Amino acid sequence: MRLAVIGGVAAGLSAAARARRCDPSLDITVFEKGPAVAWGACGLPYYLEGRVRSVEDLVVYTPEYFRRERNIAVRTGCAVVAISHSRRQVELAGGERAPYDRLVVATGARLDRSIDGAGHPGIFTLSTLEDARRLRCFLLEKKPRRAVVVGAGYLGLELAEALRTHGLAVTIFEAASDVLGRRDAALTDFLRKHLERFRIELRLGARVEVVEPGSVAGVPCDLVVLAAGWRPNAELAAEAGIQLGRTGAIRVSEHLETNLAGVFAAGDCAETTHLVTGRSVYLPLGTTANKTGRIAGANAAGRRERFPGVAGTCIVRVCGIGVATTGLSEAQARKEGLDAVEARVEALDKPRYFHGEPVTVTLVADRGARCLIGGTVIGPEGVAGRINVLATAITSHLRVEDLEQLDLAYAPPFAQVWDPILIAAQQLAKSM
Amino acid sequence: MRLAVIGGVAAGLSAAARARRCDPSLDITVFEKGPAVAWGACGLPYYLEGRVRSVEDLVVYTPEYFRRERNIAVRTGCAVVAISHSRRQVELAGGERAPYDRLVVATGARLDRSIDGAGHPGIFTLSTLEDARRLRCFLLEKKPRRAVVVGAGYLGLELAEALRTHGLAVTIFEAASDVLGRRDAALTDFLRKHLERFRIELRLGARVEVVEPGSVAGVPCDLVVLAAGWRPNAELAAEAGIQLGRTGAIRVSEHLETNLAGVFAAGDCAETTHLVTGRSVYLPLGTTANKTGRIAGANAAGRRERFPGVAGTCIVRVCGIGVATTGLSEAQARKEGLDAVEARVEALDKPRYFHGEPVTVTLVADRGARCLIGGTVIGPEGVAGRINVLATAITSHLRVEDLEQLDLAYAPPFAQVWDPILIAAQQLAKSM
Repeated sequence: MRLAVIGGVAAGLSAAARARRCDPSLDITVFEKGPAVAWGACGLPYYLEGRVRSVEDLVVYTPEYFRRERNIAVRTGCAVVAISHSRRQVELAGGERAPYDRLVVATGARLDRSIDGAGHPGIFTLSTLEDARRLRCFLLEKKPRRAVVVGAGYLGLELAEALRTHGLAVTIFEAASDVLGRRDAALTDFLRKHLERFRIELRLGARVEVVEPGSVAGVPCDLVVLAAGWRPNAELAAEAGIQLGRTGAIRVSEHLETNLAGVFAAGDCAETTHLVTGRSVYLPLGTTANKTGRIAGANAAGRRERFPGVAGTCIVRVCGIGVATTGLSEAQARKEGLDAVEARVEALDKPRYFHGEPVTVTLVADRGARCLIGGTVIGPEGVAGRINVLATAITSHLRVEDLEQLDLAYAPPFAQVWDPILIAAQQLAKSM
Repeated sequence: MRLAVIGGVAAGLSAAARARRCDPSLDITVFEKGPAVAWGACGLPYYLEGRVRSVEDLVVYTPEYFRRERNIAVRTGCAVVAISHSRRQVELAGGERAPYDRLVVATGARLDRSIDGAGHPGIFTLSTLEDARRLRCFLLEKKPRRAVVVGAGYLGLELAEALRTHGLAVTIFEAASDVLGRRDAALTDFLRKHLERFRIELRLGARVEVVEPGSVAGVPCDLVVLAAGWRPNAELAAEAGIQLGRTGAIRVSEHLETNLAGVFAAGDCAETTHLVTGRSVYLPLGTTANKTGRIAGANAAGRRERFPGVAGTCIVRVCGIGVATTGLSEAQARKEGLDAVEARVEALDKPRYFHGEPVTVTLVADRGARCLIGGTVIGPEGVAGRINVLATAITSHLRVEDLEQLDLAYAPPFAQVWDPILIAAQQLAKSM
């Protein structure tokens, strides 16, 4: 039995590795169009910042490791240009054809480069290791002083901070009226002011249609980074007759199978299910890529595992502050037709004698079901832990009255006796 | 309508404050035998250590604040010596009688002082602000060099660290074969070795029956601190006909009412329900005191709120490491008759380029129900957040397969793409 995997980053390699564990006899080949596999895309901003010294430090495993330790063939620089499912074969760029019995499509995503002028020198994006290397060289050699970042998603914010660390003046253009793809006026307002304190200007509702090397929408700059609009690499799949969903990404079942039997899709090229709405969404993130890759690999090897979906958890560091969201914002919940209630509190995360600092917790509940459906946490510390509690509560359909009574850990070096989550839950219970 | 509250620390004042919010017309009096109310008992080790400068810094509110801002009478130095429920009155030390319609008993707990020789100078405990002041004076004035701590619960461990910070050689005697009141050989072993690295000796299975100023069980010392055996202050209640449970603490309903109608109990003098076993337990902790106080206060003011119980979450800092537990250990679960499965992993909490450090996560599940029933997290950072995720999962009866797929936050400054919790959950799923 032959398993072909298209794509050798998070989802593809997770799929291949798990398939191997499930079936030691499987003949597994991973086709990766780029020069490296298993690299940590989420580390690129920190390479740019200088914290990661070399792009090689972001490469977790080599093809050789997979061949030797896992008995998995990994072919880099090997682009699949067509899938012929009726013949059960993929066609490679040089004309070679490789047969398969089961296929995992893990072709990933790319940043939108359709903006006019995107090809000019001095205009960058950050989808690959090579992109990152080019941009860092430019920073170190050309010593640019002013940068424009297009997009205020997590990548745009991380890049803005990395550029600021290099001393550049930074302006972020965001087409939407909110940051982080979340309709949340309070969060956006907080981040705008926070960025301003670090001399990063955030322009909202500012769609960039043309970029030029010297200026963007009248803002002079030596450098532009396009960090808006992740697009699934779904064309190859679509041409092979694999159905896409309304989001434009590959539609999959809860077993991560596409409409073609034996063909699975995982990671940034595929849709996933939002645990709150039950609807298909496109939320390309590394965690989901790893999880869906594992399950696609298991199922391609004959198992029947289920991916329940995502809470939509996202975290980003922005100039010393952690900003994390999960589930839906109040505005998003209302748009989904839910009767949403919101509570927001600011409270110290620890006693003052342990340098407690203010943390803002926003909770969103569904008034009818009395369940938590969303949350935001902002603060200098403990943000990941708190958003994870909220993500767990959302996944478990925890009711607000039980959230309020959660037995959260307390000792002065770590927390207050009333964690900000519990205070917010009390507020929420009162509003319901 | 008159509400009397016996005890003016966490549970008592939470009850009084909440009762006031529920019923502005209530006549509320809090009787506190000590000189101060609303002080943070959990801060005492940090006062001893020197991080908290003065015991006054641990006092959150004054009686005057409660009178002025909440219209609550707080009488300090005012010991209740008897409750006559048939007459609906409490009797004070001087003979005065105060009537009530509703009563909240929040008399707290004390450390066991029944050990022979406990009255000697140079032998201390740490139940009150005055205890802490005496011990700190002794440390600063007498410059002792060697200390014995009796008890390896969280207080004993915190005290040992505080004494070590002052340069003393410290030996801890613990009667049980485990630390932190948890049957968990791996946790105990880890802590014994960790303490050794900081030159704190831990002697297990070593019950102390006699203490002398100069030595304990052959270990010479200038100072002994008794930090073992929390006992509920339940005698006053028992004499009034209030039923105690098998743990010796006051038995309460889920509405925190005792067997006497209109008499509630909360905090360290009362039992609570363990969410995993459904059984009554005695787990005196500040968080539970605050939560049960609030509910007892609301119900004393005519509401009908429910306290579901506790997961048994506990966290303690021990020489730079956070150690947290929730639910049951595998051994405890087996003793409760559950078919327990355990998985333990050590994994980096963050990428190396963000100074990732190893975190140990232990998960315990019930094989039949496939639910998480316990967990331990040990590490230098992020311990509170992770144990809180586990406490939330236990409270929600989250199944192991859903735990494995939790949408936890990931970005390099905060986490790895596979959080140690998820890796442990994968291991656990394999063992089931």
